Amino acid sequence: MDEPRSATRRRGRRPAGEDTRGALLAAARVEFAERGFEGATVRRIADRAGVDAAMVNHWFGGKEQLFTAALELPIDPDALLAQVLPGDPEELGARIVRTFVEVWDATGGGAMVALIRSIAGHEEAARMMREFVSRVIIGRVVEVVAPDRPELRAALCGSQIIGLGVIRFVVRVEPLASADTETVVATIAPTLQRYLTGELG
Amino acid sequence: MDEPRSATRRRGRRPAGEDTRGALLAAARVEFAERGFEGATVRRIADRAGVDAAMVNHWFGGKEQLFTAALELPIDPDALLAQVLPGDPEELGARIVRTFVEVWDATGGGAMVALIRSIAGHEEAARMMREFVSRVIIGRVVEVVAPDRPELRAALCGSQIIGLGVIRFVVRVEPLASADTETVVATIAPTLQRYLTGELG
Repeated sequence: MDEPRSATRRRGRRPAGEDTRGALLAAARVEFAERGFEGATVRRIADRAGVDAAMVNHWFGGKEQLFTAALELPIDPDALLAQVLPGDPEELGARIVRTFVEVWDATGGGAMVALIRSIAGHEEAARMMREFVSRVIIGRVVEVVAPDRPELRAALCGSQIIGLGVIRFVVRVEPLASADTETVVATIAPTLQRYLTGELG
Repeated sequence: MDEPRSATRRRGRRPAGEDTRGALLAAARVEFAERGFEGATVRRIADRAGVDAAMVNHWFGGKEQLFTAALELPIDPDALLAQVLPGDPEELGARIVRTFVEVWDATGGGAMVALIRSIAGHEEAARMMREFVSRVIIGRVVEVVAPDRPELRAALCGSQIIGLGVIRFVVRVEPLASADTETVVATIAPTLQRYLTGELG
């Protein structure tokens, strides 16, 4: 990847390369914590970091990817949505569970432990996660299946997904900690599916 | 409550009262972390604390209550089981969800935040929680309804319960964060009920 020389020359305050990336991440955490995902702007994050706004696209690809990187989620939202959204809406729960388990398993659960520690210990991380659950990932997933009570359904999905992560990777309760992906999908997907498209009671 | 003078006189190493209680809690955390709930003994915890084993009953009522206090759970296991176990087994999921929400709500969610922070940050707390989920609370609940695959069912129940706690109290995703107890019960109890007595898939 090219070094963002134009920005550093323009402002003369930051060295090029990884330092720009790091400055953007630090600025993003402050901006997202203060204004939430929707309220934050790429321009203001770049200003806080002392670089040109084009550097956000250069280093991250856009606001969502910067948000994900700032939260240290092992997920690219666009890649995740491209994986789970296409296909039978009645199988959406299974695709969501499978994708999360595969993404988490790929990091040995370390990313999940870091995420839980972060949201339990820092209000700003909890707020960022709240935005992420409500609007970015699940909000868009729920929009696709277009049910009633979309916000409640999104929160319910979030509760089962994050609880699975805690039990499988943080507390490591057997047999769920060692269960293969298909066992996890078979047992938990019906829960997600009911929260997405079923009768809520 | 009486001060446990006999113990302090006997060993001459601890002042009476709250310090004995604190020493027992500290010793219990070490013992439970090293040996798990089943392997830990009241006698060894008392020895570590430098007090008589009778002090465990005096201050906590027994091993389970000492375990709960050491984990800083806002739950007395016996009181919880007495509340959820009696009644129609097909309504057990609803009773569990209602009880957890009422217990957590009573502390404003603060106990849940402390618990999550603790299990994410300390392996010993995670291990204690693992024992608690697997054996004490859910193990005994699942035994009552006597299904197949009891350990998997217990872990699944744990995942939905702890995920509800994280979303409602730690990340605070609306509308689940502010939903009244009956809304939470109506939406989440069917999940617990399937995990307890239903077809797992």
